[in-house]
Amino acid sequence: MAEKTTYPMRVEPQHVDFTLHETLVSLGGNILNVAGVDAQGKGFGIDVLGRENLSWVLSRLAMEFDYRPEQYTDYGITTWISDYNRLMSTRNFTLTDSSGVVFGRAVSQWCMLDLATRSAVDMSTTAELHSQWIVDAPSPAERPRKVAAPSGELLAAEHRVVYSDIDFNRHVNTMRYIELMIDMLPIELLAEEHRVRMDVNFLHESRYGQTLAVTCAETGGEWRFEIRSDDGTVCLRAAMRFE
Amino acid sequence: MAEKTTYPMRVEPQHVDFTLHETLVSLGGNILNVAGVDAQGKGFGIDVLGRENLSWVLSRLAMEFDYRPEQYTDYGITTWISDYNRLMSTRNFTLTDSSGVVFGRAVSQWCMLDLATRSAVDMSTTAELHSQWIVDAPSPAERPRKVAAPSGELLAAEHRVVYSDIDFNRHVNTMRYIELMIDMLPIELLAEEHRVRMDVNFLHESRYGQTLAVTCAETGGEWRFEIRSDDGTVCLRAAMRFE
Repeated sequence: MAEKTTYPMRVEPQHVDFTLHETLVSLGGNILNVAGVDAQGKGFGIDVLGRENLSWVLSRLAMEFDYRPEQYTDYGITTWISDYNRLMSTRNFTLTDSSGVVFGRAVSQWCMLDLATRSAVDMSTTAELHSQWIVDAPSPAERPRKVAAPSGELLAAEHRVVYSDIDFNRHVNTMRYIELMIDMLPIELLAEEHRVRMDVNFLHESRYGQTLAVTCAETGGEWRFEIRSDDGTVCLRAAMRFE
Repeated sequence: MAEKTTYPMRVEPQHVDFTLHETLVSLGGNILNVAGVDAQGKGFGIDVLGRENLSWVLSRLAMEFDYRPEQYTDYGITTWISDYNRLMSTRNFTLTDSSGVVFGRAVSQWCMLDLATRSAVDMSTTAELHSQWIVDAPSPAERPRKVAAPSGELLAAEHRVVYSDIDFNRHVNTMRYIELMIDMLPIELLAEEHRVRMDVNFLHESRYGQTLAVTCAETGGEWRFEIRSDDGTVCLRAAMRFE
């Protein structure tokens, strides 16, 4: 039976904001980096998939943080895959402080993409790649919710996709999307400590040179976001709740 | 006699661009992080200075890279302070590959700032903090040049300073300035491998909520940049040469 795997982390000065707590973007970036390292170490990373012209694509992500750790804090990110079906593989995460208390939880859902046809692959044929690594432990938080478009009075911003935004595929980097959204929030929300829950639905990639329209609206303490590219395609929807 | 100190680095997937080489921003970020860690470890970091309401402020930076290392490469950053005078302390860096070949060089010049008066401190009174750490070895590259404003046909961009741009002082982060400039370059310059020399003059801080005007122009293979804040204050000038 496979077991969960834990990766050590440390909050370095370049990971904190002006409150000296780790940014949500750094926390989320660490979670996604752990996903990549864990998959690679267990033989089903994008390096192995790439040989068959396949890749993992993040479809939905939910993250919860009880607090953001301070500069120079050590913590661990534990990860495991709990299950998969024809369409999605579910990878889970817990963040644990040095005394063993869990202060963060995340659930990510991944599709397998055929890079030639740009369409999702039925994982029942390829799942043997990671079936031995499934851990019989439930997700540590509610799975990522489907997010509706923001409604009501919208705040809007534009962003032209530049060199620094793009990843090895020339698509906008996941954490850059989250940064664009967080930068629209009132800075007071980030200056104070809150419990945070974030649900992100990745719907379509965006590319170098496109101009993104970011909109957001707050209702009842929930901030909802939508990012569209030039031609109106919805690239992403997300919801953030600060408590 | 003090000696140079070397810090191990590794090019992780989150540090590379679409060419799978480490970005200039990641290389520069590592250099500045090493400066902070080395100063702190030797007892003259911003933690110790802060107790006297002083801080280090980066005044000028020159960086040269013969190439940008590929993903998963291990390398080392070696650093030492070669000299100081009343106004400036000079910290040097070499980047060395795993076979011992130097592929990068940097020279940084730092002032000591009185945080109460926001003016530079005469280091002859405070230099005992780091005088025992001076290494009798010259800078590995030409020291940072004074950069003139760009002239001729200017490219221009605007950037509003947001939450993700600012450091613990609520000033725009050094590497974010460099990212803003690099994002104005033709992407072809970054898609190909070049030797790079960059000179940056940090003239004035900029703050959350300001709108920055970034201009650049190319003459004879040299790209010159200027960043001004709302009120016309020049925050930064820089030159980049790709060969």
